[in-house]
Amino acid sequence: MRNIKLTLEYDGSAYAGWQVQPNGTAVQQVVQEAIAAVTGELDVTLTGSGRTDAGVHAAGQVANFKTDTTIPAADLVHAINANLPADVAVLEARDVADDFHARYSAKSKTYRYTVLNCAVRRPLERARSYLVRRPLDAAAMRAAATHLVGEHDFAAFESKQDGTPSVRTVTRLDVEVDGPRIAFVISANGFVYNMVRAIAGTLIEVGLGKRPPDSVAEVLASRDRSAAGPTAPPQGLCLMEVVY
Amino acid sequence: MRNIKLTLEYDGSAYAGWQVQPNGTAVQQVVQEAIAAVTGELDVTLTGSGRTDAGVHAAGQVANFKTDTTIPAADLVHAINANLPADVAVLEARDVADDFHARYSAKSKTYRYTVLNCAVRRPLERARSYLVRRPLDAAAMRAAATHLVGEHDFAAFESKQDGTPSVRTVTRLDVEVDGPRIAFVISANGFVYNMVRAIAGTLIEVGLGKRPPDSVAEVLASRDRSAAGPTAPPQGLCLMEVVY
Repeated sequence: MRNIKLTLEYDGSAYAGWQVQPNGTAVQQVVQEAIAAVTGELDVTLTGSGRTDAGVHAAGQVANFKTDTTIPAADLVHAINANLPADVAVLEARDVADDFHARYSAKSKTYRYTVLNCAVRRPLERARSYLVRRPLDAAAMRAAATHLVGEHDFAAFESKQDGTPSVRTVTRLDVEVDGPRIAFVISANGFVYNMVRAIAGTLIEVGLGKRPPDSVAEVLASRDRSAAGPTAPPQGLCLMEVVY
Repeated sequence: MRNIKLTLEYDGSAYAGWQVQPNGTAVQQVVQEAIAAVTGELDVTLTGSGRTDAGVHAAGQVANFKTDTTIPAADLVHAINANLPADVAVLEARDVADDFHARYSAKSKTYRYTVLNCAVRRPLERARSYLVRRPLDAAAMRAAATHLVGEHDFAAFESKQDGTPSVRTVTRLDVEVDGPRIAFVISANGFVYNMVRAIAGTLIEVGLGKRPPDSVAEVLASRDRSAAGPTAPPQGLCLMEVVY
């Protein structure tokens, strides 16, 4: 059988998240259905690099599936896209080795969390950012971010702790400012559940002056989710890239 | 009576355009209703700088209305926004002279038309750009654009010609390239109906090699709408600024 790697972009606004689940439509589901329509193989299982939550976007989600179709990979892109709704698309399809697994083979992922920092809401930004009306101190957020780079136990930034290991290595945590848009760009070898949104919520509290930058080191050490800031809302989050 | 100038941003996707009309919801209508809810004056008439068509966006539409309310302008922003849907917002409100008229007082306007130039559709860009799959030659489009700058009769770029004068002065027509995004940024002292979208459709034909850059001079001289390219679709267009 062939093993096909897909790179996907989606606007998560209308979805209950990546993973198939009882309530609401999942991105995984609509892509599986589109693949089935193209290949005629109705039992296709698409393995994602990881879940994205309801309302979270992706510009570079990766998934793989096994197939016996003889359709060339480049043609699969257009054939699958013709069967997908406007808010989901395959950007690239490639044949990969049989042992490639979108989740287990992933070496690192990059997420981007976008805050719109202005006093008045902006309709053209609303679907892709979280509005914070009071001014954020980017320098303070950058100082806080330095504490999170490196190998740490991120239990304090994990929703629904389930006892599995929560040590991850963050290789990048940049605070990028572009006019009223402030983005947290985070790369790591893995992420515990809701980690980026919990980090975003905590950095925003630092940016608002509600907690000092260095307090983030104590939050990490606490391993206590209640010590960190709130989980920032989903529409600001976008999975940008998965590296293998 | 006070005369209030509003600066507005809206996502035009769900609207039948700016102007109140029998079919579909108009942006003007929802803003008038929000103002009425705030001031209690039910017969408010909002004068826009000009119409935007169904599906066209604005990041800087300007409108004015007369009122006897005593609410300070800065508070009107938040009060009106609280009565508007998520896809429309007032960015600024200011008291202006009694003779200020959003349409007649306008000295120039700037529109931005965004093309997404890539082979595969991109869900996160779909609401704000027009997808052109074949490569566009930016240098050729820039050469064509130079013919349109200055005072010209833009009849060839006017939909539904009605015999009124069609001479306008374009002060800027830039072709900006940012990765796969190509934007036409056009400033003029006024625009005939569908002018930006007809110019965009024509420049795209130049970019695709369907017509030479210098042919745009002949199109202008023809004053014949059928000599120009098609009217590019509305979602790529955004009214950026009105200068008074």
